[in-house]
Amino acid sequence: MAKELKDLTKKEDNYSQWYNDLVVKAGLAEYSAVRGCMVIKPYGYAIWEKMQRALDDMFKATGHQNAYFPLFIPKSFFSREAKHVEGFAKECAVVTHYRLMNDPKGGGVVVDPDAKLEEELIVRPTSETIIWNTYKGWIQSYRDLPILVNQWANVVRWEMRTRLFLRTAEFLWQEGHTAHETREEAIEETYKMVNVYREFAEKWLAVPVIMGHKSENERFAGAEDTLAIEALMQDGKALQAGTSHFLGQNFARAFDVQFTNREGKLEHVWATSWGVSTRLIGALIMAHSDSNGLVLPPKLAPVQVVMVPIYKGEEELRAAVAQMEPIAAELRRRGISVKIDDRDNVRSGFKFAEYELKGVPVRLAMGQRDMAAGTIELARRDTLTKDTVPQEGLADRIAGLMDEIQENIYTKALNFRAEMTTKVDTWDEFKRVLDEKGGFILAHWDGTPETEEAIKDETKATIRCIPLDAPEEDGVCIYSGKPSKCRVLFARAY
Amino acid sequence: MAKELKDLTKKEDNYSQWYNDLVVKAGLAEYSAVRGCMVIKPYGYAIWEKMQRALDDMFKATGHQNAYFPLFIPKSFFSREAKHVEGFAKECAVVTHYRLMNDPKGGGVVVDPDAKLEEELIVRPTSETIIWNTYKGWIQSYRDLPILVNQWANVVRWEMRTRLFLRTAEFLWQEGHTAHETREEAIEETYKMVNVYREFAEKWLAVPVIMGHKSENERFAGAEDTLAIEALMQDGKALQAGTSHFLGQNFARAFDVQFTNREGKLEHVWATSWGVSTRLIGALIMAHSDSNGLVLPPKLAPVQVVMVPIYKGEEELRAAVAQMEPIAAELRRRGISVKIDDRDNVRSGFKFAEYELKGVPVRLAMGQRDMAAGTIELARRDTLTKDTVPQEGLADRIAGLMDEIQENIYTKALNFRAEMTTKVDTWDEFKRVLDEKGGFILAHWDGTPETEEAIKDETKATIRCIPLDAPEEDGVCIYSGKPSKCRVLFARAY
Repeated sequence: MAKELKDLTKKEDNYSQWYNDLVVKAGLAEYSAVRGCMVIKPYGYAIWEKMQRALDDMFKATGHQNAYFPLFIPKSFFSREAKHVEGFAKECAVVTHYRLMNDPKGGGVVVDPDAKLEEELIVRPTSETIIWNTYKGWIQSYRDLPILVNQWANVVRWEMRTRLFLRTAEFLWQEGHTAHETREEAIEETYKMVNVYREFAEKWLAVPVIMGHKSENERFAGAEDTLAIEALMQDGKALQAGTSHFLGQNFARAFDVQFTNREGKLEHVWATSWGVSTRLIGALIMAHSDSNGLVLPPKLAPVQVVMVPIYKGEEELRAAVAQMEPIAAELRRRGISVKIDDRDNVRSGFKFAEYELKGVPVRLAMGQRDMAAGTIELARRDTLTKDTVPQEGLADRIAGLMDEIQENIYTKALNFRAEMTTKVDTWDEFKRVLDEKGGFILAHWDGTPETEEAIKDETKATIRCIPLDAPEEDGVCIYSGKPSKCRVLFARAY
Repeated sequence: MAKELKDLTKKEDNYSQWYNDLVVKAGLAEYSAVRGCMVIKPYGYAIWEKMQRALDDMFKATGHQNAYFPLFIPKSFFSREAKHVEGFAKECAVVTHYRLMNDPKGGGVVVDPDAKLEEELIVRPTSETIIWNTYKGWIQSYRDLPILVNQWANVVRWEMRTRLFLRTAEFLWQEGHTAHETREEAIEETYKMVNVYREFAEKWLAVPVIMGHKSENERFAGAEDTLAIEALMQDGKALQAGTSHFLGQNFARAFDVQFTNREGKLEHVWATSWGVSTRLIGALIMAHSDSNGLVLPPKLAPVQVVMVPIYKGEEELRAAVAQMEPIAAELRRRGISVKIDDRDNVRSGFKFAEYELKGVPVRLAMGQRDMAAGTIELARRDTLTKDTVPQEGLADRIAGLMDEIQENIYTKALNFRAEMTTKVDTWDEFKRVLDEKGGFILAHWDGTPETEEAIKDETKATIRCIPLDAPEEDGVCIYSGKPSKCRVLFARAY
C-alpha cells in the first residue's frame, strides 16, 4: 500500500491519470474482462450503498415507491417515440439468441443458430419505453394517477471511450418514472426531483451544483424540458450530476396511454423521468480528493473514524487496543462508524498512508505516552492537520467534527467554484478564459442550436445549463452578436 | 377490487390458477411485453425490499461486504469449468451485436451487421466465472483471504415455462462468492450461510424449512456439495428456497487462482457461493395465503396495520380520521407501519376486502359508536377473527400482536408440514402417498443417481435433500431394495 501510494500520480501532473490511479488504488473499482464494464469493489460499493440509502429515503419522503421492470426491451419499442430512437437506440447491447450449444467441432460452446429470437431484445439503456408500455395497463382514470415510481437498476450504453464511474458500458442508477393528470403537476414533479438531487449533492456529496434547463441540443431524447444539476470538478471541467425530465405527453402518445380525466374526457397522460447514477462516485472523487488520495465527506464515508495503535511489541499493542475499545464503542453508540486497525504485520506509517489514500475523515492514533497522559492524536483528512487532544470528551468532539468536516469540504468546493466562475462578454475572452483558466463561464447566447453547435465545434465547450436563478439581463451573444436576455453557463464537460 | 376479489380463484379449486390470480390481483407482479420477464409492482417490490434489508443485515453481521460485477460474461468463460458449462451455459440470453441503425428501407431500427462482437457475451445466469476471473487479480497471499463478498443483482435464465416469481427468465437475487485458505474454512462458510437462510426463512418468512445436502443429480453445476433449505407449499409440493455451495477448488483451478499459503507454497483457493432470489416471494405467498388473498407475516408486510373509518357523510369521516391519527402516530413511534384509508369514493366493505386480498396483518375499523365508547374493531388477517377492544392500551396490544401473528403463521405452517410429512417403507406406499396425499416423504434410498433418476421418471418426485439431522437408521431402498443408512426427503417440487 505504501508503495501503491507512492505510485499515485500527482493531481497537478496529470489529472486524468491521477483520477484513474486513485479509483484503482483506493480499491473503489477496476475494469473487468468485459470491454467497458467495471467491477465495483467493496469499498466503492459501500459508498454507493450510502448514496442509495440517502436518495431512497428522500424519494420515499416525497411519496415515491420502488418497482422493477424488465432488463430487456423489444427492439420495436424504440421506434415508437421518434426523438427517443435517435438518442437511445443506437449504441446498445443487442440480444439475438437464447441458447448456446456444445460446439460440434469440440472446444467449448457456440451460439445455437436455431435459437434465434423473432425480435431482437435490447438491454435497457433507459426504461421509458418498457415502463410506458406497462403503464398502459395501469392507468384508466384520473383516480389511477399520479403514479410515482422509481427503479434501482443496471443499464447498458455501448460507449466507445470509457472511464471508471464516469462513463462505462454498464452502470448502476435509479430512474424515476412518474405519470400525472396535468401538465402543471408533471412540471412540478420535474422541479421537485431536481431539487432533491441538488439537496443530495450539496448535503451528502458536499458538492455545490447549479440547477438549470438544458438547451435543446443537450436535452434528453424525447423530453420537452430537461433540468440538470451541474458540478465543477477540480480540473475546471463540468460534470452533469443528475437530470430530471419533463416528458410532456410524448411517451403517453407513443404507447397510447390515455385516461378519463375529471371532466370525463379521454386525455394522454403527462410524464416525467429523472435519474442519477454511479457517476456520482466519480463526481465525489474529482470534486474533493488530492494527491494523497480520496477525501470523503463524512456522510458518505464507509469508515468515518479509524483508530491506529502506536506500539512496540505485542503487550503494548494489546494495551492500546484495550484502551481504544471503549472509545470506539462510545462512537458507535452515536452512529459513527469506527475501525480499529490492530494489524501487526504492517507499520503505523503504512496504515496512515493507507487511510489517507482511502479518505477516512478522522484518524486517531494512540501511543504509550498518550495512554499515560489520557490523550490521543487526532488527524483530519480534509485539512491534513493533527492535534493531540484529551480522551475525555472525545466522542462529543468527534461527533461535532463530522459536521465540521462535511461543512468544510463543501465550503472549499463552493469557494473553488466561485473562483472558477467567470463572466465573459466577448468571443476572444471566452476562448482565452476557457483555455487558460477553465471552469464555468457565464456568457450571453442568442438561444439558437446553431450558435451552440458552432461554439462547441470551435472550443469543445457546451452549454451546461440555463441556470434557474439567472437574472434577466440584456446583452449580446458572444458568438453571433445577436441580442440575449440572460447569461447561460458554459464549460467543457465530462 | 371487490369485483377482482370475487374473481380470485379458490385455492381448493385450482391451486395453480389461484396463485397466479393472487399475484396479479394483489398487485405484486405481472408479465411484461418481454417473454418470461416480469414487472415487479410496487407492492411486491416493497416485500422484496424488506427481505433484502433483513438478509443484507444478516450478511453484514456475518462479515460480508457487497460489491458489483459485470452483467455480461464472455462466452469462453463458461467452457472453463467443465461441469459448470453443462449446467449453465445453455439457455441464456446471448448478446451478439452492439449497435442498431435506422432501417435503410425505412420503418424503425435494425441491427447493424457491422457491429458484431468478436466474442459473444452472455447475460449472467450466475456469476461464478466472471467473479473468479476477477478474484485472480485480488488474491496473491493467504493475507488476502478470506474474501467475503455478496452481490445483489439481476440474472437471466431462458426458461421455457415461466411462472411469476417462481420461474422467470429474469429474476432478482443475491449471490455470495467467498474465497478461503482452507477446505475446512470454506465448508464452514457453506454451513454458516445455509443456516442464515434457514433463520431468515423461519423468522422472517415464517416458513419452516429442512436443511440438507442435495444429491449428486441435483447439485449445483461445478459444486462439490450443495446445501439447501426446502420448504413445503400448501398444495403439498416442495420448493427449494435457498442454496449454499461448497465449490472446492474447481473455480480456482478453472481460472487459475492460486495463493501463497502460510507454508509459503502455492495452492488453489477454496470457494463457496450461495443465493436466494425473488422466488422467496412465491414461497411466501404459497406457504400462507388463502382464498381471501395474501397472508403476510408482519415482519415482511409493507403495511402492518390499516385503519378504516366507518362513517356517513364528510363530517363523520373527518371526526373518525381525527381520532385515528394519534393512534397511528403512537404505532409509528413503535416502528409499526400504518395506513389510514380515508378514501371517500369506495365503501368500507370494499376496503375490507382489498386489505384482506393484500394480506395486511391487522385491520382497525372505527365507527361512530366506537368513537363514543372509546373502542375500536380489531381484525386479524391470519385468523380472520375480529374483536372490539378499548382504544386505551391499543399500541401495546398491537405491538404484542405483531409477534403473536408472526408466531401463529409459522406454527400453522409447521403443523401443516408435520401432517404432510410421511415415513414410507415400500415402493407401493411411496407412490400411493405421493398421489393421494403429497407432501414430504422420508424414505430409504440406495444412494445411487440411477435409482434417483428412475424414481423421478416414474413419479416426478425428486430427492429434495438428505437432511442434515437425519438420524442414522438401517433400512432398504424403497426402489432397489439395496441397503441404506438413512432416510432422505422426497417430494414433487416447484
